[in-house]
Amino acid sequence: MTFSVTVLGSSASIPAYGRFPSSQVVNHNEKLFLVDCGEGTQMRLHQNGFRRGRIHHIFISHLHGDHFYGLIGVLTTMNLLGRNKPVHLFSHSAILNVIKVQLEVAQTELTYELILHPLDGLGQEVIYENEVIEITTLPLNHRVPCWGFLFREKRLARRFLSEKAAQFNIPFHMIPRLKAGEDYITPSGQVVKSLDVTADPPEPRSYAYVADTAYDETLIERVSHVDLLFHESTFNEENRQRAAETFHSTALNAATIASRSGAKQLLLGHYSAKFKDLEPLLAEAKTVFDNTLLSMDGKAYTVGRPTALEV
Amino acid sequence: MTFSVTVLGSSASIPAYGRFPSSQVVNHNEKLFLVDCGEGTQMRLHQNGFRRGRIHHIFISHLHGDHFYGLIGVLTTMNLLGRNKPVHLFSHSAILNVIKVQLEVAQTELTYELILHPLDGLGQEVIYENEVIEITTLPLNHRVPCWGFLFREKRLARRFLSEKAAQFNIPFHMIPRLKAGEDYITPSGQVVKSLDVTADPPEPRSYAYVADTAYDETLIERVSHVDLLFHESTFNEENRQRAAETFHSTALNAATIASRSGAKQLLLGHYSAKFKDLEPLLAEAKTVFDNTLLSMDGKAYTVGRPTALEV
Repeated sequence: MTFSVTVLGSSASIPAYGRFPSSQVVNHNEKLFLVDCGEGTQMRLHQNGFRRGRIHHIFISHLHGDHFYGLIGVLTTMNLLGRNKPVHLFSHSAILNVIKVQLEVAQTELTYELILHPLDGLGQEVIYENEVIEITTLPLNHRVPCWGFLFREKRLARRFLSEKAAQFNIPFHMIPRLKAGEDYITPSGQVVKSLDVTADPPEPRSYAYVADTAYDETLIERVSHVDLLFHESTFNEENRQRAAETFHSTALNAATIASRSGAKQLLLGHYSAKFKDLEPLLAEAKTVFDNTLLSMDGKAYTVGRPTALEV
Repeated sequence: MTFSVTVLGSSASIPAYGRFPSSQVVNHNEKLFLVDCGEGTQMRLHQNGFRRGRIHHIFISHLHGDHFYGLIGVLTTMNLLGRNKPVHLFSHSAILNVIKVQLEVAQTELTYELILHPLDGLGQEVIYENEVIEITTLPLNHRVPCWGFLFREKRLARRFLSEKAAQFNIPFHMIPRLKAGEDYITPSGQVVKSLDVTADPPEPRSYAYVADTAYDETLIERVSHVDLLFHESTFNEENRQRAAETFHSTALNAATIASRSGAKQLLLGHYSAKFKDLEPLLAEAKTVFDNTLLSMDGKAYTVGRPTALEV
């Protein structure tokens, strides 16, 4: 089951050195979630081979331009491509007027339903779930209301081992019950134990997207033990003062949260245009958390261990 | 004196195949005019080595998204870069609300003055001039109010030939008068003819930017004899019906206007996402106007003959 993050834009407010503003595609089980939508997102989607028609859920962390200026382009291109399926938009509700005004001047109407799920006032709450994953808001500490998003796989039922089970002639309808832990007694009275014909499910994997935030130790518990932690790292320690003033984090801040929350891997991003070369940010983070990667536009990152298991 | 057009985006409404939506930089005498501002313009400016601080004049042909979604990004990045010089914006006035709403949600105020020059209701009129160039609106025939822009160099004074003049010991203050055609009589009564110590100025050059428009024969007179004609060519003749319905032109339409208006060179652009390969558009245009070029993102085109003359 796929679980990956493709970074479409790794830049903070001013795009620079080929880095576009914030946007990511989270692919979970071939379902695509668009997370933030900076200017140029629709071009990046195309460049990275994501069909825009496959996106049904868009999450906007906050209403600073580098996180939403690309939304109107994505929405109107979907229109031009003749979309009729709804789009679910998770955002502060003030986004609606931004969309409305731009559609009005262009005398355009959307051909599909745009369903807003307002984040206004939300704490850490589940805002989306399907059979296999749950998405939770992560309120952050920024200059305007801002949320990260935590993607956690649900714990699946035990895996049925069909080769081991073949000898017992088990009726088809018993399989879900065996997977749920129930034993099966054959017509001749033989007990087939659930544990003998099923195996542990894979460990649920998790991804936390920590968008713009000042250093915030409450995150340590809130993103506890994720497989992959994206944490904004706009600055380095040399610019610590500037980070504090603008409610941003340094690479060292990000690594500290990764280390103390027990993350398995850290992904840096949302880089200031100050930095042409990002290696100093990486080196700084690695002083406290070794398993750190620099996110780069157009690169995909696997969340946790890949698994071939079909659901 | 430089006169060139750098195409930042050559795509029509849906960006495709690496082509960004409409935007161009017209460089005249090292003064930069930004013409249309589709999504991604600020990234394209950076990629093409144009410092955003050098842009003081922005022209928006009309309020379809592929011509203005990048404006808010350009304006706010200027802000982040600490701009204090005014920006002159030539556009339908409805653009102001689009900018205002987006600044408001981000709780941002511009640090510089944004001066709107509304195009609402304008015919073919001069909207900008300096000592060496004049910019005129070209009302077009599109689904919403739309204007092209005609850049025409002014006719300069005659060039002073200092080597030829050296023998006459001409006072400095007489030079502008000789260049203006007046003869000079030396203290000893000798007549120095203007024609003997000056030469013809270079022919004024001109560039017409014909944005989104249905085929419109009134353009033939209105863009008469330009050195370089950019004419939108969203479609080819196979899609003539679609072009008519959407108030766009075909490559053949563009070439017909070029040929009948006496343009020296034609630049095609604003390509539909239908066309991965643009050669068929070029071939179609060349059947009626041979000196045609395909505009491409990131390429610069010289207007008329280059001249080394300093003003």
